[in-house]
Amino acid sequence: MSALTALRPDDTLATPLYLQLARNLEQAIHAGQWSAEQALPSERTLSEALEISRVTARKALEVLLEQGLIRRIQGSGTFITPRLEQPLSRLSSFSEMLRMKGFTPSSQWLERSIRMPSAEELIRLSLSPTEQVAHLKRLRKADEIVMAVEYSTLPARLLSNPFSIGDSLYEHLEQIGKPVVRALQHIRAINASADMAARVGIEPGTAMLLMTRVGYLEDNTPIELTDTYCRNDYYDFVAELRR
Amino acid sequence: MSALTALRPDDTLATPLYLQLARNLEQAIHAGQWSAEQALPSERTLSEALEISRVTARKALEVLLEQGLIRRIQGSGTFITPRLEQPLSRLSSFSEMLRMKGFTPSSQWLERSIRMPSAEELIRLSLSPTEQVAHLKRLRKADEIVMAVEYSTLPARLLSNPFSIGDSLYEHLEQIGKPVVRALQHIRAINASADMAARVGIEPGTAMLLMTRVGYLEDNTPIELTDTYCRNDYYDFVAELRR
Repeated sequence: MSALTALRPDDTLATPLYLQLARNLEQAIHAGQWSAEQALPSERTLSEALEISRVTARKALEVLLEQGLIRRIQGSGTFITPRLEQPLSRLSSFSEMLRMKGFTPSSQWLERSIRMPSAEELIRLSLSPTEQVAHLKRLRKADEIVMAVEYSTLPARLLSNPFSIGDSLYEHLEQIGKPVVRALQHIRAINASADMAARVGIEPGTAMLLMTRVGYLEDNTPIELTDTYCRNDYYDFVAELRR
Repeated sequence: MSALTALRPDDTLATPLYLQLARNLEQAIHAGQWSAEQALPSERTLSEALEISRVTARKALEVLLEQGLIRRIQGSGTFITPRLEQPLSRLSSFSEMLRMKGFTPSSQWLERSIRMPSAEELIRLSLSPTEQVAHLKRLRKADEIVMAVEYSTLPARLLSNPFSIGDSLYEHLEQIGKPVVRALQHIRAINASADMAARVGIEPGTAMLLMTRVGYLEDNTPIELTDTYCRNDYYDFVAELRR
């Protein structure tokens, strides 16, 4: 119960108790106090452990539901929503990050092909004009929730068989001795097209984050050009800046 | 002319010459070859210096115009668009970054006040419940182009007179011996509200980047909670990631 009592709101503060509790729960969620398969304490448990009213506990949970931080699963309780806290300094794989939090990452393949590159791909990947590329298009999921749509292009000389990849491109590249060790990433906001919106289950026009990454091998060869269209509510891009 | 000849497209490549030239110009712009007050070489200059047709030069410039990287100023020529390449590792001031490129940064104040904090501000800035905050709301401009709307909240004990700030909050904080040395920044995509859209000159609903930053003093006191609503076409957030 000690982890729970740390959530207790302070009734000497002017901030309403339910807001304090919501904030404490939020911090505990971000700090990883619950993993995907663990139910959050119920209204009743919170109210008893923290000596607060059921109403206060309920209102705090409602704040988190509205923020999309938690979701109710009928008959099982309240669980944390998959959320990818993506640090903007360390290169980390989607699969790796989600597994750490207890979610089950998966990819649903929409396309895997070998084709000629576009002019953009040719230049970004420093290809010779006759070189082919492997093209991958997939839905990225956590516990069957679609979090992003990802388009990756790699030189075919480095990835000749796109059908050999499992759920994680980065794990595959490591297995074949070609790990991505560095990447340059740009972040933009875009309005979801009708097609994109349908794929990820949002309204057309909703703002999404578009992450464009060029990944490099140890010898600075560009190996990967990836566009990830991220559902804003499931991604949290965080950067720590210093003078 | 040596800087110009480096832009010459390679006619042994399969990529169309105008696309190669557009890409070379884009790289030169990003590398800082032209500053705000310098006109880009004209179609005619490009065509003569690079021994290409006027049509090729024109089409290359049109690609950059469409991308919003350059703009035409009647009677003066073609100039680079203000663009804030914001590295996601180094804390850098808006004013500093734009001045480096030759733009004139400015702030148009929409509000400066001292008031009680919201619950959110109270928690994020670790305030005591009776403390007041200085609230700043301003348009951030470069050469009179509105690039962002910024809301900042600071503890009033650290900034008692919000009217003492000039164009740069960060410069002011340095002058009063309270420089921000570290910040945690989150990036999200949002749809512009009607009010926001009118302020920055875009269509309502257009996707914008919302940067939320908490800035800290050397002794880890949070001093600044800032929400910056960035026009997507003028901001370029870049992160370099490593394993």
